[in-house]
Amino acid sequence: MDHKGRQQHLRDAMSAHRLDAMLVTHLPNVLYLCGFTGSAGVLLVTESKSVFFTDGRYAVQSRAEVQASRIVIARRSPLVAAAEWLGSHKEASHKETAHKKSSRRAAPFRVGIEGEHLTVAARNRLAGVLPSHFRLREAPPLVELARMVKDAEEIARIRAAVIMGAGLFDRALEVIRPGVRETEVAAEMEYAARKAGAAAMSFETIIASGERSALPHGRASEATIPEQGFVVCDFGVILTDYCSDMTRTVFVGRPSEEASRVYQAVKDAQQAAVDVVRSGISVSEVDGAARKSLQRCDLAKYFTHSTGHGVGLEIHEAPRVAGGQVETLKPGMVITIEPGVYVPGKWGVRIEDMVVVTERGCEVLTPTSKELIAI
Amino acid sequence: MDHKGRQQHLRDAMSAHRLDAMLVTHLPNVLYLCGFTGSAGVLLVTESKSVFFTDGRYAVQSRAEVQASRIVIARRSPLVAAAEWLGSHKEASHKETAHKKSSRRAAPFRVGIEGEHLTVAARNRLAGVLPSHFRLREAPPLVELARMVKDAEEIARIRAAVIMGAGLFDRALEVIRPGVRETEVAAEMEYAARKAGAAAMSFETIIASGERSALPHGRASEATIPEQGFVVCDFGVILTDYCSDMTRTVFVGRPSEEASRVYQAVKDAQQAAVDVVRSGISVSEVDGAARKSLQRCDLAKYFTHSTGHGVGLEIHEAPRVAGGQVETLKPGMVITIEPGVYVPGKWGVRIEDMVVVTERGCEVLTPTSKELIAI
Repeated sequence: MDHKGRQQHLRDAMSAHRLDAMLVTHLPNVLYLCGFTGSAGVLLVTESKSVFFTDGRYAVQSRAEVQASRIVIARRSPLVAAAEWLGSHKEASHKETAHKKSSRRAAPFRVGIEGEHLTVAARNRLAGVLPSHFRLREAPPLVELARMVKDAEEIARIRAAVIMGAGLFDRALEVIRPGVRETEVAAEMEYAARKAGAAAMSFETIIASGERSALPHGRASEATIPEQGFVVCDFGVILTDYCSDMTRTVFVGRPSEEASRVYQAVKDAQQAAVDVVRSGISVSEVDGAARKSLQRCDLAKYFTHSTGHGVGLEIHEAPRVAGGQVETLKPGMVITIEPGVYVPGKWGVRIEDMVVVTERGCEVLTPTSKELIAI
Repeated sequence: MDHKGRQQHLRDAMSAHRLDAMLVTHLPNVLYLCGFTGSAGVLLVTESKSVFFTDGRYAVQSRAEVQASRIVIARRSPLVAAAEWLGSHKEASHKETAHKKSSRRAAPFRVGIEGEHLTVAARNRLAGVLPSHFRLREAPPLVELARMVKDAEEIARIRAAVIMGAGLFDRALEVIRPGVRETEVAAEMEYAARKAGAAAMSFETIIASGERSALPHGRASEATIPEQGFVVCDFGVILTDYCSDMTRTVFVGRPSEEASRVYQAVKDAQQAAVDVVRSGISVSEVDGAARKSLQRCDLAKYFTHSTGHGVGLEIHEAPRVAGGQVETLKPGMVITIEPGVYVPGKWGVRIEDMVVVTERGCEVLTPTSKELIAI
């Protein structure tokens, strides 16, 4: 991974936002910028330096993983250590001295923080440690914006995660039978994932059967799969740091005409959204395509969530593929397309693929058929 | 669970800290106070009311789960909905009116926020929505402090989680053999957990073998178990919302005298710490007991983390069992006792039990033998 290039890209963005330093605390952003995979670390990026702070537990691991950055092992909190380092740091003091010559007052040194991730208490601790000429500024999500467009190596890793994830659906098809608990299906899929080498599932496996299929977030429960009805399976793996995400809905028993019609409507809506994806189109147009398709069957009112989201180091990342969002798709973005229809107390259907945006359209990464499977 | 009593307890604490309302955003705290288990929800507690805010995805689930609170389904962000509700809320307006009579200016209405959990950006969004006479105050961790002492029903659930967790170690003993990948061991344990009915593992399973046993946070890797050496197994389950946590270290092959001595030293240190646990003692004394025991074998310098932590709805919660901490143990607190010795590049040993504090001592919940097992 080109950690050096990513850090330079961040420096350019910092400069455009008049930030003298950026304190990166969101761990997926830290991983993206320097390669650290542990659970406690802060990356400080200034105009000319990158310094990574962690604690003693990660002394060995950080030396093996961290790229393009100096490493500091903090005695206590990495965040406080970063603030202390900054307070006694040459660049910052320099700025102070240079300015002092003319006005005898320190020039403000602007430190960007990640407002969507840093807690109020952590911000206050930082402010308490930094000398008075430092200013904490809530920065735009600079790293998240950069992460939206994946490079070739990232897409290769995502592709591998998607293929492994798709394999779990085959296992689900073997296990889903009337009377089997939803958690048993999840257990078999997660076991297969671990055996295949996944680091973990990318989120809690959703197996929602019968009436529970109407719950968009129906995590596998102790409920047993009924004789007749939809089963929504939504799951993914983490492989070499990257996430996969897919949903397929199967029918146990013989689907009624109405069930087949609802399934076909969701399948058409999903395809309609996939068909409009290309570089230059806005995410709200993609969302609109799925919604418009469902309107034709009078089902749009049952589509109660957004059409998709970015996927990468995190299972949910920018952009949101939703109405009212202004983001424009670019080649290399990886998003999900996952419309659904949920009729409370009755049933639900969702179909989800991951796609990578290209100049003229998109490549659907998920290799699995979307035809209705009756079990 | 006595959600009403817990909310009343919070109200008493709010009153002691001169807070007119508390905005509870940390999900384990929300679960503790009203029973909601989903991933998006905010509980607003005022002097006389409890209102739970979530979004459309959780309309059905919240009605089934949420206790002792009114439910509001927000169109967009539950947090913003809570702020809007507060802004137009009678109690708050009342305070304004009452005060206006005398001074024509609104009396400040103090809203406590959870500074250790609320992000800077969320705080700013709140401040933007609330009318000007509302003041956001970083509250002490009132709910976390209450959660430290578990009631009988909580201890029963924790006990069940601990017993299930201990069962996974038996599975590990069947699987751990030279040449087996660490992830395979984790896979078999996690599969057994799911089959037994666990909702999930309480953290990423640690299987750290050979030299990797010297990494306190050695998540199961692709490394294979060597012919000879320690294997640290640290794992837990979530069962009916409560976590378990235990560590056992086994030896593959025939342990040298030195290995047996190190193991015995850790076992003695663990027992020394367990022996001092009782109501009224400070957590730093418990930490000190383990450290002092290791000092006698000149191994204290290799014990690089704290002795333990609270466990409950979260795998790590208050109190921290560490030097310099002032918390005093009370009956009903559930903590881990987990000293370890880590010699970088060579080996590591950790032994961890969960205990519940009683008036005169403690009950060790973890039922598993701590004798050195050679495989």
